[in-house]
Amino acid sequence: MTYLIVNGDFVLARDALISVEDRGFRYGDGVFETIAVHAGVAYQLPWHLARLSAGLAALRIVFDTTNLTKNVQDLLAKNKVSDGILRIQVTRGIGSKGYLPDPNHPKAGATWVLETAPLPAIIHQPVSLWLGSFQKISSSALPVQYKTCQSVNSILARLDATDHDCVDALMLNDKGIICETSSGNIFWIKDGTLYTSSLACGVLMGSTRHAIMRLSPYPVIEVEAPLAALLEADAIFMCNVVWPVIPVGLFQPINKSFNSTEMATQFRELLYNDRKFYSRKSAHA
Amino acid sequence: MTYLIVNGDFVLARDALISVEDRGFRYGDGVFETIAVHAGVAYQLPWHLARLSAGLAALRIVFDTTNLTKNVQDLLAKNKVSDGILRIQVTRGIGSKGYLPDPNHPKAGATWVLETAPLPAIIHQPVSLWLGSFQKISSSALPVQYKTCQSVNSILARLDATDHDCVDALMLNDKGIICETSSGNIFWIKDGTLYTSSLACGVLMGSTRHAIMRLSPYPVIEVEAPLAALLEADAIFMCNVVWPVIPVGLFQPINKSFNSTEMATQFRELLYNDRKFYSRKSAHA
Repeated sequence: MTYLIVNGDFVLARDALISVEDRGFRYGDGVFETIAVHAGVAYQLPWHLARLSAGLAALRIVFDTTNLTKNVQDLLAKNKVSDGILRIQVTRGIGSKGYLPDPNHPKAGATWVLETAPLPAIIHQPVSLWLGSFQKISSSALPVQYKTCQSVNSILARLDATDHDCVDALMLNDKGIICETSSGNIFWIKDGTLYTSSLACGVLMGSTRHAIMRLSPYPVIEVEAPLAALLEADAIFMCNVVWPVIPVGLFQPINKSFNSTEMATQFRELLYNDRKFYSRKSAHA
Repeated sequence: MTYLIVNGDFVLARDALISVEDRGFRYGDGVFETIAVHAGVAYQLPWHLARLSAGLAALRIVFDTTNLTKNVQDLLAKNKVSDGILRIQVTRGIGSKGYLPDPNHPKAGATWVLETAPLPAIIHQPVSLWLGSFQKISSSALPVQYKTCQSVNSILARLDATDHDCVDALMLNDKGIICETSSGNIFWIKDGTLYTSSLACGVLMGSTRHAIMRLSPYPVIEVEAPLAALLEADAIFMCNVVWPVIPVGLFQPINKSFNSTEMATQFRELLYNDRKFYSRKSAHA
């Protein structure tokens, strides 16, 4: 049996229900985290909880994340998760029917859900990346550095990529600057230096991005770079918690090839080793 | 007792529940409509259902809206609604855990909810409008002409307005062009001509906007206009289904006053009369 935690209670999936009045359902008015679990330990959990808190603050959702560490441990134990994915979502809960939240609504208060899932099948072969027509939402419109439940932009870009037999879509901002893919952050290597889009471009402050920057044996530079920079790269890879590192072999629609496999493998191994090290360290803490 | 319809069934609010796996809850992956009900008739219902269908198509959510007309009539009768608000929401339902929808998921299929609410208290006094820092999401990133459940941009702008003792916030696009407020479309009168932002600016194709353009005794021009055009107006009003027309008396933070009440009252009366006419016509159909 796989359990979830909904507002503090263990429930089975069939009982993991929320009201249609929840502003998460009405408006996508919430924030979530996706976290890797290795050897029963949630990787970089304090970092994820700090980002969750910052995202909630940006949306002005009042929720104390202090007890989540214990909830996470309880859920991983209950579901006997060794390796897998953990998801935490917090929404503004029930409130006014309009856009303006009403903190004095009789049912006001955040809704929070913790769930676990098995690791999906991982792609290690180089994939095709699509330069589609969907622009990344501007950081002038949304706090895009956090994982808000405002995902239709990513969903549409990803569907567009799939239409063109590509695994993911590269998204640029309104100035034509490289941001990220629909589902992950992007890195590229040029002349022995590792590059990624700076947060100023309007990208997710990704947890795997964070780990890769920390673990990189190459100097890392965060840039606001035009598409041309990517096309001149020696290797390109994408990352997120689930993948965690995928080499880009072909950039479409211009049909340009890259030899990214070796570089992606190197970073994937660095990441797996760090997850192992993190788990051992936590077990002895 | 007030009922809702969830996936075709009448339920009470306490039983109007959806799974936390619903992509509406996870990602705001859906579309909704807010509709005025007068004398038991849903105003401009065919227009709303056409916009709903177009929004669903833009998000590639498969759902046949044909039977909604009957569902709406059934719910209005069941809840004995004479005057009020009707809300229809359709989400992509349960699917893959990632951004990419999986139409072959065993639980795949849209989730749809119909609900009614009383008319809230209406503001007829002139209000203050705030020029805040939140840019409108670009139509290059999202199909903003439809009411997607991607509302955090509007929610944050509205909260920002409230911080400054204003009822709503004016939102510009990434080129500094007037779009709309966080919660409604905007109109202004200058030298006997009525102006509103064109859809090309990246604004909601609002149903009240549609009605006002149809009913206006003044020539109507849709424009891509800079903020200066609004500041030179003779009168300004905002509209949505609920309000339905509110005069702007003060533009902040520059503290510029407008005499908008007479014009707003004229358009509100035109709209109320059309709702009455529409209800009578429907009753005799």
